[in-house]
Formats: sequence, structure tokens, C-alpha cells
Amino acid sequence: MPLKSDAPTEITAFRWVPDFAQGLVRDLRLRWAMEEIGRDYRVRLLNALKPRPEEYFHEQPFGQVPFYKDDEVELFESGAILIHLGLQDERLLPTDHAPRMRAIAWTIAALNSIEPVLLMLISLDVFIKDKEAAKRIRPEVVERLAGRLKNLSEALGDRDWLEGRFTIADLMMIAVLRQLRGKSTIAQFPNLMAYVERGEARPAFRQALADQLQTFKENEPEPEPA
Amino acid sequence: MPLKSDAPTEITAFRWVPDFAQGLVRDLRLRWAMEEIGRDYRVRLLNALKPRPEEYFHEQPFGQVPFYKDDEVELFESGAILIHLGLQDERLLPTDHAPRMRAIAWTIAALNSIEPVLLMLISLDVFIKDKEAAKRIRPEVVERLAGRLKNLSEALGDRDWLEGRFTIADLMMIAVLRQLRGKSTIAQFPNLMAYVERGEARPAFRQALADQLQTFKENEPEPEPA
Repeated sequence: MPLKSDAPTEITAFRWVPDFAQGLVRDLRLRWAMEEIGRDYRVRLLNALKPRPEEYFHEQPFGQVPFYKDDEVELFESGAILIHLGLQDERLLPTDHAPRMRAIAWTIAALNSIEPVLLMLISLDVFIKDKEAAKRIRPEVVERLAGRLKNLSEALGDRDWLEGRFTIADLMMIAVLRQLRGKSTIAQFPNLMAYVERGEARPAFRQALADQLQTFKENEPEPEPA
Repeated sequence: MPLKSDAPTEITAFRWVPDFAQGLVRDLRLRWAMEEIGRDYRVRLLNALKPRPEEYFHEQPFGQVPFYKDDEVELFESGAILIHLGLQDERLLPTDHAPRMRAIAWTIAALNSIEPVLLMLISLDVFIKDKEAAKRIRPEVVERLAGRLKNLSEALGDRDWLEGRFTIADLMMIAVLRQLRGKSTIAQFPNLMAYVERGEARPAFRQALADQLQTFKENEPEPEPA
């Protein structure tokens, strides 16, 4: 049972987030990795709805979750934390230098070649307040994202995982692609849909997701009086 | 002289790009790193104005530059290539695990917490065709970017480099921030302006920049007949 209140490894996560973000907050990436290797961890909860306490920025410069610490390191950026965990466990990252670096390259591709375009689409759909202008720009962003997904779909081909076996590259890429759930942009690439489902079917992913959702369920705010 | 036609290390770069992109194409990040450690490399040039040859996507899944190869690895994503070079040379990345991982965390922060917001602004200014809608959304994106730059400015404080000494984290962060040249968003943070200038003053950076610009000068297309 990786989730353990006295574990030396600690991550931060949110106490509660609105429905659209549940199952997508980035501590899930770490929970998933720790379930894959059976590493115990504990969770420190932050309030997503209030500004982060000033001292938290000394831990996480952008005020995001997750921040990670263990006996050896204090780290931010889920990509870096996955690399740190991968360097300690072959089940997440090969030990030979060349395949290890290929997995790191794909991890960074998820973060820098796929996620920025995907986040632009999500910004337009969720965060930008000028809804009409956002709607006008949307088709151009969808086209750009579809181009990237086409490249990814062709690179994956009919393989199960990006570099022959499951690594942090797949964990990160699938975590990034899951943010497109319910959007038609990804549905035109059946091998990417199957790839995401393959990741989500892993027992480690299912446990991690259940644990994140359980926290939100336990801390659901009282509805405002009508 | 790192630039050497028979070097075993090869990177790809563009033959020529329009003015606005000169000095910003991502092969610069690798040229800079290789100048820092005196590592010889050769350049294979691609045409930026035409679609990439089909076989190039087997090397670089998204058709971008740079693709990198040496005797040991074939890699894409400038972030991963900097980590690969850093693991081989202490001048780019500390050898102790904890400071090494801190530098990797900041490298990924540049790529995933700063660059995506910055690229959204650049997309609106340069690539989005619906200029009027882009202009309406722009202030919201500027505000978001300014928030991230404020976090970065406070994390850097009055230090010269992000983690006490120059590493790939600074190389990447400065390469990312340079894309804001001439924009007012960064000018309100004098320590970030000074940080970028500090990086650009390094002899390795200046040589790398000169080499990228020299290629563009040599391959400038003939002006179209009027």
C-alpha cells in the first residue's frame, strides 16, 4: 500500500478541485509512478481555491502541485520527479544509457511538444474570459494540435509503448493526453485512444486515480446556500 | 573550435529562417552547450521553408530541429539532449544527485512552466491568422505570463544563476526567455533582464549565436523579383 501516512516520501496535492479537473491534477503522475514501483508516500494537502501560502513558493516556485521530497531530494516539476524516481527503479526507466535517454526524450516531448499546444486549446475552452474571441481562434489551435497528434500517432504505430516497454515516457505521455478526454481532436487517432486506455488499465494507474478521487470525495465543500 | 565538419557528433539545423526567428532556432541551445564544454560537432542543414522529408520524421517525430546523434545515442528534444550532454560533463550539470536533479527540475520548468505560456503569446502575435481575435485575447495571456515571470523573478532573486552556479537549467531558461526579446512583459523584471544578458555575455553563447547567424547569412535566399 504505497499511500502511508508515515512514509519518508511526501508529495503535495489539492484537497479538492472542481469536477473538470478531478483525475487530472498532476500529483496523479507521481502517485501512478509510486504505485508502479510499490514506493510508500504520504500526501500533504493544499487548498486549490485559495492563494498558496507565501512559504509554499520557496518549495514550488510557481505555487503548483506537486512538490516532492524524500530523504535525498526536494523537487518540483512532475517531469523531473519522474526522472528522479526512474533513475532509482528500472521498472520506470531502463538502466542502459541509450534507451534511458530515449525514454527521457519522449518524457520531454510530452511536456514540450504535445502539452503546450494542448494547454492552449484547454485555455481557450476553459480559462480565457473573452469566449467569442476564443471560439474564433479555436479551429487554428485544433489544427495545430491535430498535426502534433498525427506525428505522435505515426511514431507510436502499432506498438504498445513508445520505446518497446513501459517507461516514464508512456506514463507522462498518457497523463498529458488524458487531458483531451471527451474532445474529438484525439478520437481521429484510434491507436492513441487505445494507448491511453492501455495506460489507464494498469493496476498502478487505477489505484493512483482512486486515491486522488477519494481525497476529493472526503473534502467536498458544502454546497453554497441557494 | 567545436564546429568541425568531420566531428562524430551531428545536429540538425535550418539552412535559413526569416529575421524574426534568427538567433532563436533551437539548435542554438545545443551549439551553446557544446561551446561551453569544447565538444566538436557538425551540422546537417534542412530547408525550413519546405515540408521536412518523410524520412526525417523517423529521426525527429515532430519534424523539428534539432535532431542529435553521437556514437552513443540518437535523440530529439533539446531538453533531453542537454541532459545527455550534462551527464557527460560537470561544467553543464553537477555530479551529485541532489543538485543534479535540482538543475534538471529547473530545465523542465523552463520547458513546461514558462515556455508554454510564452509560446501562447508568440502564437497570438505571429502565427494566428485571425489577428483581431488574437488581439482581444492577448491581455489575458500577457497577464498569465507576467504571473509566471514574477514567480521566476522572485525565485532567482539577486543570484547570478538559478542554483548557485551555471548549469543547463540556466542555459535552457535563458534560451526560453530570449524569445521575449523586445516585449514589454519581461522588461518589468530587471533581474530577469540582467539574467538573460548574463547568459548572452558568455563567450560560449556568443560563439554559438555567431555560428547560427553565419549559416543564415551564407544561405540567404535571393529576393523575389519585384
